[in-house]
Amino acid sequence: MVSTSHLFDPNLLGDDLKADLPQGYVIRPLSQDDFSKGYVDLLSTLTTVGDVTEESFNATFQAMRRSNIYYITVIEDTAAERVVASGSLICELKFIHSCGKVGHVEDVVVAKDQQGKKLGATIIKQLMVLSQNLECYKTILDCSEANAPFYKKCGMIEKGVQMAIYFDKDGSNGADKKTSTSESSKETADEVITKGINGVKL
Amino acid sequence: MVSTSHLFDPNLLGDDLKADLPQGYVIRPLSQDDFSKGYVDLLSTLTTVGDVTEESFNATFQAMRRSNIYYITVIEDTAAERVVASGSLICELKFIHSCGKVGHVEDVVVAKDQQGKKLGATIIKQLMVLSQNLECYKTILDCSEANAPFYKKCGMIEKGVQMAIYFDKDGSNGADKKTSTSESSKETADEVITKGINGVKL
Repeated sequence: MVSTSHLFDPNLLGDDLKADLPQGYVIRPLSQDDFSKGYVDLLSTLTTVGDVTEESFNATFQAMRRSNIYYITVIEDTAAERVVASGSLICELKFIHSCGKVGHVEDVVVAKDQQGKKLGATIIKQLMVLSQNLECYKTILDCSEANAPFYKKCGMIEKGVQMAIYFDKDGSNGADKKTSTSESSKETADEVITKGINGVKL
Repeated sequence: MVSTSHLFDPNLLGDDLKADLPQGYVIRPLSQDDFSKGYVDLLSTLTTVGDVTEESFNATFQAMRRSNIYYITVIEDTAAERVVASGSLICELKFIHSCGKVGHVEDVVVAKDQQGKKLGATIIKQLMVLSQNLECYKTILDCSEANAPFYKKCGMIEKGVQMAIYFDKDGSNGADKKTSTSESSKETADEVITKGINGVKL
């Protein structure tokens, strides 16, 4: 049974993708119940998850829901009661393009034991349909060079370069790890930038 | 005088950047009053703005304010009462990285007659300080290959590739223009993808 505590209105997903799914699999919005259906374990196959308790999960879920811009979509193996794939769409409001909207795809992940079922492609297809239903004029994402061919097969084109800066206490830039911040560690603008590029000031 | 109708709390910006600005220039959150200070004209130097009335500007401004995730920051030439530079930071909530946050920089623009005052660099520096004050673990943006060196000087590293899909009524992909959608033009998942890549199905 699909939970009623959804992150967003399931009607926004439409019905097109049902035929793409294996028997017993459903595609739907993230639910607050998914904490107990392996959602955090699934994310850990993507990157560092760190310490996510049920309390912090619920708080973040509710904050996302209130913002009305997060469209995290999951695929559940209903027989196993386990979430096996996920992808996020953030719907950004703009002033440009006649106060238009842009979709940002983030955190696409498929459980390692679910290869060969095209779940990644199904998630991406769903997020594109969702983008259209939300009236985005475009949808963008960042990926590695190695994954670009997959997204080209999904109908995307290579548009530009992704740049990043990491805010690490030890001053390193590029290490994708959690940092904690406190008032005493707040840096000036120049310190942020010089730490990022080893002393070359702007 | 700085307007009180700010998009976000000005205290989040800190005070570090004041020395970087020309005499009479201030850096602050976007204000609803900025519609009458040339904000839409400024955006038109970046890309297609289309039809943005004061009514639609206000509606979008208020929707952004309610979401609590938009941190559009502008530089105003107070003598001219004109906004001359802008950059947006969207603060995305995540579950990964211990329910961390990621900053997304968007729509960085400097008025064409304001070259040589380092306003672009100042905006970027400000958004990085703001990212830290919001406790983002990283901040990312997309840019052209040609602009990557500028952002490297700002302390960023090249991290990956940006991919995009455009939702155009005529089926073209890559034309950065406004599309309107209606119920009758909603496409199936496969139509979205095949239009994007000229018939090569996923």
